[in-house]
Amino acid sequence: MITSHNGPQPADFTDVRATNLAVVLRFVRENAPCSRADIAASTGLNKATVSSLVADLIDRRLLRETGLTEHRVGRPATMLVLDGSPYAAIGIEVNVDYITAVAVDLKGEELLNWRRSFPGGTSGPGRAVVAMAALARRVVSRMTKEARQVLGLTVAVPGLVDVDGIVRVAPNLGWRDADLAGDLTKALRDPGFPVLVDNDANLAALAEHRFGPHRNAANLVYVTGEVGVGAGIVLDGRLRRGGQGYSGEIGHLQLDPAGPVCRCGRRGCLEAVAGVGAILAHTAPDASPSDLELEIDEVVRRARNEDREVLGLLENLGRHLGRGMAVVANLLNPEVVILGGYYVPLAPWLVGCAEEEMYGRVLAPGGGGCRLEVSTLGYGAAALGAAARVLDSVDSGRLPAQR
Amino acid sequence: MITSHNGPQPADFTDVRATNLAVVLRFVRENAPCSRADIAASTGLNKATVSSLVADLIDRRLLRETGLTEHRVGRPATMLVLDGSPYAAIGIEVNVDYITAVAVDLKGEELLNWRRSFPGGTSGPGRAVVAMAALARRVVSRMTKEARQVLGLTVAVPGLVDVDGIVRVAPNLGWRDADLAGDLTKALRDPGFPVLVDNDANLAALAEHRFGPHRNAANLVYVTGEVGVGAGIVLDGRLRRGGQGYSGEIGHLQLDPAGPVCRCGRRGCLEAVAGVGAILAHTAPDASPSDLELEIDEVVRRARNEDREVLGLLENLGRHLGRGMAVVANLLNPEVVILGGYYVPLAPWLVGCAEEEMYGRVLAPGGGGCRLEVSTLGYGAAALGAAARVLDSVDSGRLPAQR
Repeated sequence: MITSHNGPQPADFTDVRATNLAVVLRFVRENAPCSRADIAASTGLNKATVSSLVADLIDRRLLRETGLTEHRVGRPATMLVLDGSPYAAIGIEVNVDYITAVAVDLKGEELLNWRRSFPGGTSGPGRAVVAMAALARRVVSRMTKEARQVLGLTVAVPGLVDVDGIVRVAPNLGWRDADLAGDLTKALRDPGFPVLVDNDANLAALAEHRFGPHRNAANLVYVTGEVGVGAGIVLDGRLRRGGQGYSGEIGHLQLDPAGPVCRCGRRGCLEAVAGVGAILAHTAPDASPSDLELEIDEVVRRARNEDREVLGLLENLGRHLGRGMAVVANLLNPEVVILGGYYVPLAPWLVGCAEEEMYGRVLAPGGGGCRLEVSTLGYGAAALGAAARVLDSVDSGRLPAQR
Repeated sequence: MITSHNGPQPADFTDVRATNLAVVLRFVRENAPCSRADIAASTGLNKATVSSLVADLIDRRLLRETGLTEHRVGRPATMLVLDGSPYAAIGIEVNVDYITAVAVDLKGEELLNWRRSFPGGTSGPGRAVVAMAALARRVVSRMTKEARQVLGLTVAVPGLVDVDGIVRVAPNLGWRDADLAGDLTKALRDPGFPVLVDNDANLAALAEHRFGPHRNAANLVYVTGEVGVGAGIVLDGRLRRGGQGYSGEIGHLQLDPAGPVCRCGRRGCLEAVAGVGAILAHTAPDASPSDLELEIDEVVRRARNEDREVLGLLENLGRHLGRGMAVVANLLNPEVVILGGYYVPLAPWLVGCAEEEMYGRVLAPGGGGCRLEVSTLGYGAAALGAAARVLDSVDSGRLPAQR
């Protein structure tokens, strides 16, 4: 008898009932409409247990019954579907020049998507908290008008965030040791829902894993393409944060000790040779962070016109990116690496040479099956992922209280 | 309300009863002696369910009752402990110059540990299967005499093993596309227990995670220190293999494009500058693979005598190793990186400079809490991990049939 590596995984002890509630909830989301008998048959839970779990989920308005089916042998069964209309999950992203807010329902349908310009790069965490709280209050107020209960709020930050939600270092924002989760909770005067903070690349990876076209990939890595380069790592279907929450820091992977100087002081880091700054240093050396989008548009325009300088810069960037992604592919063997941020508009000139370089360097046959793809979720991936983070909490058994 | 990142994780649908059986089994292993009421209180399963699960586990002789306790309020409860004495898990490691077999009981107590010299580097997979089957039959026969049922057998191989147990490439053995699991199963004439094959670094990581002094670390990376360098990655308490099982390939992480030539044809790979070959190329350029252990002993002797050439080579190796481990720490943020194989005898001269180099390159404050440690499980870590892999299957709900 030969068995494969992947089988059922041991569950945590903490609360098997909560876990089982979440199992039923996820089963219905993926298989609705379905009956209690379907759930029992597929999960191995006995029928009495399933009935009790379903009753609980109906009480919490996470599931609802939707008539009978007659398309089967035996007596008709009452079918169940996801309810969740009375709920909302909020994601906020703060970055160098904007704050974004997104709200989604339990199914992940977008309820609102607001963007405000905000000088995150110069305002410090205090003013950012004030601005985020103001925005969050307006979102909550809108959700309340729609008779939705807010399940939680997550903030995406471009920086190192520890497992307690403290922003340890956010280089481009100039923040250090900011208790963003605590301060925002206070500013919202204990809003009655959890406030989380996480790294933007982590959350974008979560968005891809939940909503993106590669959501069936159990192992994916999302790479932010900004001046800084970071990664979010999903392995075996879940975000992997490491011991203190600092995983995914690939920006200062040193590709060439003889390369150009990086902001960190060393030479030839991935950021220095494959961040978008590696191009802008040549095409727009004096551009301010708020002009980034315009300057990238200009690079795209020149590339379309087959400007040889720009095409050369892009090919060089693509090759270095491919070298970096080979490290990711060799170490983690994901099904897909998804390029986000400014890599998206630049993709037509990057992906080919990056892939070629990556495949040449991956030890496993056929590159270990790893593909290089471009994000389709747009610049809002991190905020969407922040909302997805709240839905993940629900999936993990942190259900809203019965009302 | 602020909540941390880590909460209960969603379970798989596949078989909740199997998962719950495994939850109870693991709870008893970690908390024995304990009562059915203890299990119910800690897991959230109701008492009737716990009683049914415990009865099943007793039938399978995985648990047994052990008298009553009177040290509590209320009527005395029957206490449960792990049984498992009727079982054995077998691990086999095949390498360049030996085959090792280990057997452990359900608690991980070592039942036997045999080593045979074997020319793995020159014999091809066919002869290796014959030799492993002969050894495995003797182990099974010994276990049968002890009235133990064999739960499974795992083979550790230094190479890329896909999720179906096919050895895709094992450079030092010279193997390619060898269906080791299938061939060994045939050679054992369908032994009635599962035969698995996995990468040696993966299995050594599993051994560290289950039996080593850092077993409480949810995130650890094991690094093999041989002529080749590979890694096994445990994140959030479980081995992470990637999409096709090829994770952990750090040997050809290119640290210096201008460095010495590597066996792969590129320059400055981690293996070329931080594998033990980087030292032996200077101290024993003509040594054969089977002399490796002797030559490393000689390096240790010279280092003890403060031989300046050897001390310089070791420091250089340590620094390169630290650079490589900084990549691991930045990307994965483990609590600990454990150095195995020949890094162990060389550790007194390696770890200090490797750590210094690593900490200087990790972006997270305090190195993200990542320590560099030396394996205490010895050269048998992979074989022990192979046996642990079988126990992991049991933990994951693949329980032995009732007898």
